[in-house]
Amino acid sequence: MFSEQQLSGIVQQITENYKNEDIFYIKSGQCMPDRDCIIHIMLRLRQIMFPGYFDDEYLGRTIPEYFVGHNILRLYDDLSCQIKSAFIQVSPEDIPEKEIEQKTKGICINFFSSLGTIQKYLVKDVEAAYNGDPAAKTRQEIIFCYPGLLAIFVYRVAHELYKMEVPLIPRIMSEYAHSHTGIDINPGAQIGEYFFIDHGTGVVIGETTIIGNNVKIYQGVTLGALSTRSGQLLRDIKRHPTIEDNVTIYSSASILGGDTVIGKGSVIGGNAFITDSVPPGTRVSVKNPELEFKQKKASLSINELFD
Amino acid sequence: MFSEQQLSGIVQQITENYKNEDIFYIKSGQCMPDRDCIIHIMLRLRQIMFPGYFDDEYLGRTIPEYFVGHNILRLYDDLSCQIKSAFIQVSPEDIPEKEIEQKTKGICINFFSSLGTIQKYLVKDVEAAYNGDPAAKTRQEIIFCYPGLLAIFVYRVAHELYKMEVPLIPRIMSEYAHSHTGIDINPGAQIGEYFFIDHGTGVVIGETTIIGNNVKIYQGVTLGALSTRSGQLLRDIKRHPTIEDNVTIYSSASILGGDTVIGKGSVIGGNAFITDSVPPGTRVSVKNPELEFKQKKASLSINELFD
Amino acid sequence: MFSEQQLSGIVQQITENYKNEDIFYIKSGQCMPDRDCIIHIMLRLRQIMFPGYFDDEYLGRTIPEYFVGHNILRLYDDLSCQIKSAFIQVSPEDIPEKEIEQKTKGICINFFSSLGTIQKYLVKDVEAAYNGDPAAKTRQEIIFCYPGLLAIFVYRVAHELYKMEVPLIPRIMSEYAHSHTGIDINPGAQIGEYFFIDHGTGVVIGETTIIGNNVKIYQGVTLGALSTRSGQLLRDIKRHPTIEDNVTIYSSASILGGDTVIGKGSVIGGNAFITDSVPPGTRVSVKNPELEFKQKKASLSINELFD
Amino acid sequence: MFSEQQLSGIVQQITENYKNEDIFYIKSGQCMPDRDCIIHIMLRLRQIMFPGYFDDEYLGRTIPEYFVGHNILRLYDDLSCQIKSAFIQVSPEDIPEKEIEQKTKGICINFFSSLGTIQKYLVKDVEAAYNGDPAAKTRQEIIFCYPGLLAIFVYRVAHELYKMEVPLIPRIMSEYAHSHTGIDINPGAQIGEYFFIDHGTGVVIGETTIIGNNVKIYQGVTLGALSTRSGQLLRDIKRHPTIEDNVTIYSSASILGGDTVIGKGSVIGGNAFITDSVPPGTRVSVKNPELEFKQKKASLSINELFD
Amino acid sequence: MFSEQQLSGIVQQITENYKNEDIFYIKSGQCMPDRDCIIHIMLRLRQIMFPGYFDDEYLGRTIPEYFVGHNILRLYDDLSCQIKSAFIQVSPEDIPEKEIEQKTKGICINFFSSLGTIQKYLVKDVEAAYNGDPAAKTRQEIIFCYPGLLAIFVYRVAHELYKMEVPLIPRIMSEYAHSHTGIDINPGAQIGEYFFIDHGTGVVIGETTIIGNNVKIYQGVTLGALSTRSGQLLRDIKRHPTIEDNVTIYSSASILGGDTVIGKGSVIGGNAFITDSVPPGTRVSVKNPELEFKQKKASLSINELFD
Amino acid sequence: MFSEQQLSGIVQQITENYKNEDIFYIKSGQCMPDRDCIIHIMLRLRQIMFPGYFDDEYLGRTIPEYFVGHNILRLYDDLSCQIKSAFIQVSPEDIPEKEIEQKTKGICINFFSSLGTIQKYLVKDVEAAYNGDPAAKTRQEIIFCYPGLLAIFVYRVAHELYKMEVPLIPRIMSEYAHSHTGIDINPGAQIGEYFFIDHGTGVVIGETTIIGNNVKIYQGVTLGALSTRSGQLLRDIKRHPTIEDNVTIYSSASILGGDTVIGKGSVIGGNAFITDSVPPGTRVSVKNPELEFKQKKASLSINELFD
Repeated sequence: MFSEQQLSGIVQQITENYKNEDIFYIKSGQCMPDRDCIIHIMLRLRQIMFPGYFDDEYLGRTIPEYFVGHNILRLYDDLSCQIKSAFIQVSPEDIPEKEIEQKTKGICINFFSSLGTIQKYLVKDVEAAYNGDPAAKTRQEIIFCYPGLLAIFVYRVAHELYKMEVPLIPRIMSEYAHSHTGIDINPGAQIGEYFFIDHGTGVVIGETTIIGNNVKIYQGVTLGALSTRSGQLLRDIKRHPTIEDNVTIYSSASILGGDTVIGKGSVIGGNAFITDSVPPGTRVSVKNPELEFKQKKASLSINELFD
Repeated sequence: MFSEQQLSGIVQQITENYKNEDIFYIKSGQCMPDRDCIIHIMLRLRQIMFPGYFDDEYLGRTIPEYFVGHNILRLYDDLSCQIKSAFIQVSPEDIPEKEIEQKTKGICINFFSSLGTIQKYLVKDVEAAYNGDPAAKTRQEIIFCYPGLLAIFVYRVAHELYKMEVPLIPRIMSEYAHSHTGIDINPGAQIGEYFFIDHGTGVVIGETTIIGNNVKIYQGVTLGALSTRSGQLLRDIKRHPTIEDNVTIYSSASILGGDTVIGKGSVIGGNAFITDSVPPGTRVSVKNPELEFKQKKASLSINELFD
Repeated sequence: MFSEQQLSGIVQQITENYKNEDIFYIKSGQCMPDRDCIIHIMLRLRQIMFPGYFDDEYLGRTIPEYFVGHNILRLYDDLSCQIKSAFIQVSPEDIPEKEIEQKTKGICINFFSSLGTIQKYLVKDVEAAYNGDPAAKTRQEIIFCYPGLLAIFVYRVAHELYKMEVPLIPRIMSEYAHSHTGIDINPGAQIGEYFFIDHGTGVVIGETTIIGNNVKIYQGVTLGALSTRSGQLLRDIKRHPTIEDNVTIYSSASILGGDTVIGKGSVIGGNAFITDSVPPGTRVSVKNPELEFKQKKASLSINELFD
Repeated sequence: MFSEQQLSGIVQQITENYKNEDIFYIKSGQCMPDRDCIIHIMLRLRQIMFPGYFDDEYLGRTIPEYFVGHNILRLYDDLSCQIKSAFIQVSPEDIPEKEIEQKTKGICINFFSSLGTIQKYLVKDVEAAYNGDPAAKTRQEIIFCYPGLLAIFVYRVAHELYKMEVPLIPRIMSEYAHSHTGIDINPGAQIGEYFFIDHGTGVVIGETTIIGNNVKIYQGVTLGALSTRSGQLLRDIKRHPTIEDNVTIYSSASILGGDTVIGKGSVIGGNAFITDSVPPGTRVSVKNPELEFKQKKASLSINELFD
Repeated sequence: MFSEQQLSGIVQQITENYKNEDIFYIKSGQCMPDRDCIIHIMLRLRQIMFPGYFDDEYLGRTIPEYFVGHNILRLYDDLSCQIKSAFIQVSPEDIPEKEIEQKTKGICINFFSSLGTIQKYLVKDVEAAYNGDPAAKTRQEIIFCYPGLLAIFVYRVAHELYKMEVPLIPRIMSEYAHSHTGIDINPGAQIGEYFFIDHGTGVVIGETTIIGNNVKIYQGVTLGALSTRSGQLLRDIKRHPTIEDNVTIYSSASILGGDTVIGKGSVIGGNAFITDSVPPGTRVSVKNPELEFKQKKASLSINELFD
Repeated sequence: MFSEQQLSGIVQQITENYKNEDIFYIKSGQCMPDRDCIIHIMLRLRQIMFPGYFDDEYLGRTIPEYFVGHNILRLYDDLSCQIKSAFIQVSPEDIPEKEIEQKTKGICINFFSSLGTIQKYLVKDVEAAYNGDPAAKTRQEIIFCYPGLLAIFVYRVAHELYKMEVPLIPRIMSEYAHSHTGIDINPGAQIGEYFFIDHGTGVVIGETTIIGNNVKIYQGVTLGALSTRSGQLLRDIKRHPTIEDNVTIYSSASILGGDTVIGKGSVIGGNAFITDSVPPGTRVSVKNPELEFKQKKASLSINELFD
């Protein structure tokens, strides 16, 4: 065990750090939004979107209005509480609580009013996945298991809050999806209908990306910025590409830059690295002669490249 | 809070959506398989495979038969319940429940009878990982921590159920592994013994892939289809490559196409992009001259490529 | 249900496997370290590092010493218990328990004494992320949500234990971060201050990597070994690159080999594949002419490449 | 640890017992009702009866119909599942499951249809408690804290199921209340409105007791049978007393026998022991001269009575 | 399942009840105190009072101040939140929240300042139990297991809040003890030091009881009111007896009435029923000749009294 | 919130108390037995005794030996750990741990070897309850719900440990039953077969009580000591009565004193208060003329006795 001196020394060091940095102090009387609660809200929204898949509430029952109405009432409380906390954290101290509550109320009503529309989008996303993946046996399998659909669901919910400038919460949501699927869609991105991400691990879709309808994306695709070395100076500038309708982007392709536009119906091959616009209907592929083939020697030493 | 009108409007919208789509209705009197339960089954199977690592049941005790027998009896109940649910979901309504129960019973008995063999494979997979990774200090570390082994364990279990055409459940299992490891092995793939995946994030192994013995794969490797634009028409066609014995595939290499065969003992270099077969004993590497090197200017503007 | 014969046959098979392999037997009277407990310790350390973010303990209260002191005392018990278990697992049977306890105690005191310093590093890592990402709205968002910061936090804690040669536990910690972020930093790597990983999925940083100050890394970057086919023979040899101060490495670049040095202030472009050293101040980019562009035909057959 | 022989000996003994007794064998393919589930159902019914007291569902919200409707739908599933199990346990094996399901359905619909009436009774019971106890500060305190009200609530619910001859479940419910309050009301008893039990520990109200309106009972009161030595022969015979309207029974009084009637408006004093009927308007008290008073001696030996 | 009509009929009935009764409506924007939270606070106070007995916090550690200080800070938040809720529930709507917060703060500080004194009382209560019960093997057994001590602990905590006129919460606390021990001590009672209750089931100690030092009470003892038929009119009048120092009251004795005083050092025998004062030093016992003994007949019929 | 001074003042007071009392200090490096764990052990023993009633383990399965064997192995670990802790707490510091472990091992093996016998007793106790209670519909109802059976089960387990002089644990067990049933059976009592307690609340059975076969006891019965004022001096002396075979004791009867013997086949009436021996075959009842009956006056004042 510690001696008394060792222990109080350690405690001293850490509390000293607290004093020296603003990020450790949270405004008195207020708490930060609660990550677990936000994720829980999201998962319960998913239960409303797809009843019977993620809980034991199925639609063979009488009067589904009770199920939906009850859950929306409860979610209202939880979500408005989190949104209020988030606004208080980022607002100047002299903004009256009443004002924040008023803003929160408006946002919540708008948000819940958009759920029906989000649900319609998701039904189309399921369809896109079913049509796009020969390994999919049923639509149920997609709803139940596909990480791509989870990521898109979370994005569609988070994007709604992002549009209303709710701080922190959209990002907490999208990082939940990122963590569970390896798909990192910034809630600021704008994405059309019938969107499908297959496998998905390593996909990055930046904040100012615009994606049209009926777009299909594979694992490892980056829709990114050319460079972000200028840091916070670039905020609010379009840094990420535009992908028009009916485009397919195969695995590990990178498409970078705010002015880069991939024209309608184009197909971008795997591993392609693109920093300039591509006209509609173009098929872009990595050229073949980039590889070299050698017959392996009988025995290999440690220092050899690639084995 | 909502006005009464707002609330009932929102509820209306969502319940309207329910009515318009088949996917929201689950057959009366039946529930979907339970994702959490399936994952729990899988984790308890892992406890039987590697006693003492993931629970407090260790093998210094008298009569290990009690431990194994008791747990298999309990898992039988849980698994057969889930399999039955899965079959009911995908079967026509007029198939009698008795018939489904009979089929489920047969599958369960076969499945549990295969556990001993799966366990033997896993012991070899641990060995492959230990021999293949200089950073591995002990075999225990591999069992305990290596995401590659988790993914292979899940695959070996899920593949057994896939072979017996159990719906939904193998995919739920493999997506659990995908979510936790970033490794996406379709349960339909056929994989030999002494298989090792290092690091693993971003690995994709498609449904019709065939992998021989003693194969080693690194993070970001795709064993994929050339194209899946034809969607459900491609179902049951071999769309993914064949990897023969003793092949090593380094990070982020892509090997695509159902006719593509990587011959015995070949080594595929990192980032290689391969759509044609490679003869046995070949070393394939990305050619060097693809990069350009510039001395950086003193100052950089936002619009420059790569910084 | 099983017949009695089937069931005892299955049990027989598995218990037979137990007998044939050393890895199933854990030393009598001792248990393995507990994965959940270790992860819990780590998450509680994070609460001390960033009070108010991950629990309801905020610093507006009187006398923060109580909070820190109490938690460190409790963590001491839990951590020392796990470290002791880990040492017992890997030590020869004749080492007296007292000796292991003595070693454990010294390690714990050193570890807790380093927390203040780790915390200072983390504050700088937050700063690096804020300055480096135009999508970051506030420093709080980074602490709360950024997977890169989680991975670095876990690394900094695990590295401290790695340096003191604690078995198993650093790896359990780093695989937790790997699973949640897709970022795989071996606890043996040496990493300077102001480190930032953006998006992060697919990043691999090998055991003998050395990274200077103010380095920025994007998703999919591999800092790896050229080859590990020689397996355990390579243990303790420097197999991974050195990255000097102020280097930026864009997405999916691979830098391989123990002798490879990326000189100060260099910028490595996305998808670059590097196996030789790069002098200071170099900008390395993938050459443009590697792609080919075709106008798509009107109709497509299944067998065509890339669609 | 056990030797192999000791362990298998112990196991042998217990499994031998199993074989010798019917009570250990439960009909194949069926499980017993689930105690925890039944208690949970009861507690959720209490939340419907008194919204806002035992969960966070309060009635300031819009459209309380959603709350009630949703919860009743969910409780229907749970309760009908438990009732079905209970009937299967006690029915001959040749009764078809369909028939039991039909009966269960009817019972459930009746039961839920009686909830509104039960709720009205409970409101009156709260009133009786408030008026009857000078220590009660508010009606809320009674709903929140009074064990007497909990016991009456459970009784009123369980009695409804008892009337419809549901096996096992009413008793499981009443024993829950017994355990938490020390008040043992057999679900078969018939109890009028405005019933109040103060303190309550030790109260026993037998199966064939009849209690009128506006009756008040204190701790330790027994409304019991004269003798039950004849055991199962007495089943269905009225063995417990009748208490008419407006009666008060003070603490630890015993009223025994199926023919014993306590007439309207009577008051039974504490500790009274009554085995014969009492006419209306009677005040019964324990006579005073039953005690003896002695001045204590200066010193006391161990063998003295009462000190 | 319900028909739509049945279901909405049931819902209608219950929501109609809601509208007709005040007790169902809780003031808008406020919630009731949380029973589980209050009980949790109480149990954590017990951990501070007796460290090491009810959690794993023992006093062999360095610097116990950290343990105590940290826990008091956390309890302050929880308790003040509950007290505030309780006051809001019972206050007129026009009392400003600030005022309630101010009052709550004062109460909390007083309450926590009294903990040291409560703890000293409890140490003496343990001593009284150890000396008073020959079945007690150690003082630890008393702290760990004795329901009497639990009831006294809860009383001493609840009484402190009762004195400061905190609504609802003291009663919630005392009913917790009542439920777990069968001992019902109203938090308004005044009880001196060295108090011991043996066995305890059925003990009732009324709101205006006064108990001196070194008093010992057995199971089933009632310290009650003569009559409470006048209900709320009796509020705040002394209705329960006074028990002076060094009195012993044996099992099932009843002592009733606000003017009844049991003088110093008296001993009240089991089953005694007392409604008048008893002078100091008196030994009161139930007279012997109250029983009749019969030799039992050979055979017994159902209708016989007492068998 | 507290000022710094207030807070540290409170902390000071409590830590000061810690220093002044031995009972707060637990031997270094050792923890107390864990109440929750002990109760959990007991409940799992009940699952072995009555499979299918309190968990989902039913005996329609193949090979019940697996169920029993597995659970006994796990319980062995948990129980021996608790017993060891209990011995360490009460032993002088210089007793070597090895010795305590040896003693613990012997006790555990004896204890588990007695389970089969305990189970046989319990089967008889169920039979006694079924035959003795006309309200019992089935034997299952008794196992499932009857508090009397729970109390007897706990007693039979705790008594086994009491006989082997295990400290603390038997009492923790019996107080669990006391809390849940209101029945307080000291684990030291000796109780024969076919024992039945009906209703049970308030029953007290003292440490040195001896009870024969086929005895039936009702709620509120005390089998107690005449006086315990001499406290610890009385330890190990027979202070509680002897009840011979076939005796029935009706509700709230008290039988006191170590020399008091209730002879075979006697029947003790409700509320009887007995301090002398009763010959075999005696029927003891409370005499009738102890009550007085008055016609109530029309109106009542507050000061009247009994209303």
